[in-house]
Amino acid sequence: MGEFELIERYFKRPERHAARVALGIGDDCALLQPAPGTQLAISCDMLVEGRHFVSTLDPFKLGHKALAVNLSDLAACGARPLAFSLALALPRADESWLAPFAQGLLALADAHSCELIGGDTTQGPLNICITVFGEVPVMAGRSQALLRSGAQAGDDLYISGNLGDARLALEVFRGTVSVPEAVFTAARVRLETPTPRVALGLALRGVANAAIDVSDGLLGDLGHILQQSGVGATVDADVATSLIAAHAYYTGATGQFDTNIAPEQWRRWALSGGDDYELLFTAPVARREAVAAAAAASLTPVTRIGQIEAERGLRLMDAQRQPVPDRYASFDHFA
Amino acid sequence: MGEFELIERYFKRPERHAARVALGIGDDCALLQPAPGTQLAISCDMLVEGRHFVSTLDPFKLGHKALAVNLSDLAACGARPLAFSLALALPRADESWLAPFAQGLLALADAHSCELIGGDTTQGPLNICITVFGEVPVMAGRSQALLRSGAQAGDDLYISGNLGDARLALEVFRGTVSVPEAVFTAARVRLETPTPRVALGLALRGVANAAIDVSDGLLGDLGHILQQSGVGATVDADVATSLIAAHAYYTGATGQFDTNIAPEQWRRWALSGGDDYELLFTAPVARREAVAAAAAASLTPVTRIGQIEAERGLRLMDAQRQPVPDRYASFDHFA
Repeated sequence: MGEFELIERYFKRPERHAARVALGIGDDCALLQPAPGTQLAISCDMLVEGRHFVSTLDPFKLGHKALAVNLSDLAACGARPLAFSLALALPRADESWLAPFAQGLLALADAHSCELIGGDTTQGPLNICITVFGEVPVMAGRSQALLRSGAQAGDDLYISGNLGDARLALEVFRGTVSVPEAVFTAARVRLETPTPRVALGLALRGVANAAIDVSDGLLGDLGHILQQSGVGATVDADVATSLIAAHAYYTGATGQFDTNIAPEQWRRWALSGGDDYELLFTAPVARREAVAAAAAASLTPVTRIGQIEAERGLRLMDAQRQPVPDRYASFDHFA
Repeated sequence: MGEFELIERYFKRPERHAARVALGIGDDCALLQPAPGTQLAISCDMLVEGRHFVSTLDPFKLGHKALAVNLSDLAACGARPLAFSLALALPRADESWLAPFAQGLLALADAHSCELIGGDTTQGPLNICITVFGEVPVMAGRSQALLRSGAQAGDDLYISGNLGDARLALEVFRGTVSVPEAVFTAARVRLETPTPRVALGLALRGVANAAIDVSDGLLGDLGHILQQSGVGATVDADVATSLIAAHAYYTGATGQFDTNIAPEQWRRWALSGGDDYELLFTAPVARREAVAAAAAASLTPVTRIGQIEAERGLRLMDAQRQPVPDRYASFDHFA
């Protein structure tokens, strides 16, 4: 199977007549025409075998995840998905891999009306590079994008959904811990097919002051908000830890923890586990009702986990409001 | 060196205040705001070590080429470069590689006022994925983009610059042929640091009916124009072969060819060599003066190499207008 047949067979769709896509796959460039009074939000992520996913991962799930991590960046900007390009390096053009990969990818794309407009395919070690485009309105000359730099001292700090379960699943795959099958099954979904919080990001436009998506770990990504906003924060480490769905399983269902997982390890997974793809955002205390309304409208749970403060630096406290030493380094791709 | 330090040190620039880039590197997304009445042209290319370049290639040249092949796609659409994103997988964060790579990349970017607005860096087998954004005006509701689908029966067929020298240089690297050092030096520039024909692409807006950039070989890329325009063509194989700069060297300087290169091989390099990054375009016979003016204004040589015809299919002829059998398969990344 050649390059052009590969694109034709697996990635070319019937004409979609998407309003903003003037020209899709099949020419030197795609042509996008954003609506007047909008900005185009652009993000780009590369997934490498062995680094971002294990080689045994079901290609359908991999297709989903490759787009999901990019949509998560749009969500963190409050951008509405519009289109994406795909560059794919494959060891060989293998139908049994390509067909489910394309299905997983395009199913999530369809769910967000996000059209594949072009890209590149080549022979090489498995590598998936997606660039995604979204639209953000400009109102009265002011962009509605949620930025990392907008946090204000006094803001509440929130996180969507759950934390740490993806890392738990990864550790089970690595064989460093074992958990009951029901716990693993749920955690594995979080690792392999994360849900980008697009609807929440849209609902937070005009409500949140700053936002980022948590991909490298809660504290590391919070650090970007703090640094770019010139502020500090206190985070409740016990509230964060309670957001591990697997942790809640133990506390709720059995009342006690498996002895092979130390309390310190749970906390580490919540604070620096990585691969969560939740939205971490700040909003004024006066907007608590608006945040709750955004969470309800987008059917996305949201939890307040701390405060933004004028004093620089990151402080952790526990449920008794006692300081917790911060030794939760973030994930670094070259560490 | 960590991922964030890597970006900060090698790829972050002083603020450029580019009119259309509302937000560059450092948030979840970049934000672009195209001018009213314009479309955004988007293209994406992935370069893989061993497939698109040899591992010994000077990183400065590789940085240049990685962006050049993307700018070439913008040129083929008649789009003005605006910005690009870079996703980079590296075996390790190596200063002696990163510094010259960034220099080569950003020097070409600066020459085209094309700003790096974001991307991704990760650990993995060397892989360079660039997505480039350009602007095309929309006039009276009609996009000025040059498409593959616009060729008309009766159009002249033109190619810019030279053909086949990049392939010649590749064959010298592979050891299948040998040429004098002066010939190799010139051919090598074409392989390693191709010149994207951006100025010519802009000058051809409103003049050319169809255009494509030649990356996989002249005949293969012409095939895309013919298929998408629903037309055929006759190409003068001897004129095409005369566009190999190394071929002209022999005919001009020595009057005879090195015996290790058969006439058939020269022809094959011109017609299907690949890596040329020239513009192949069609224009009405009545616009010959306008084509010459576009070539002069952009300081880019342009040669007429055939005609577009209503009869489907591709026909080759020689200087005596005798048919030449077509057995010049195009490059396919999975062949």
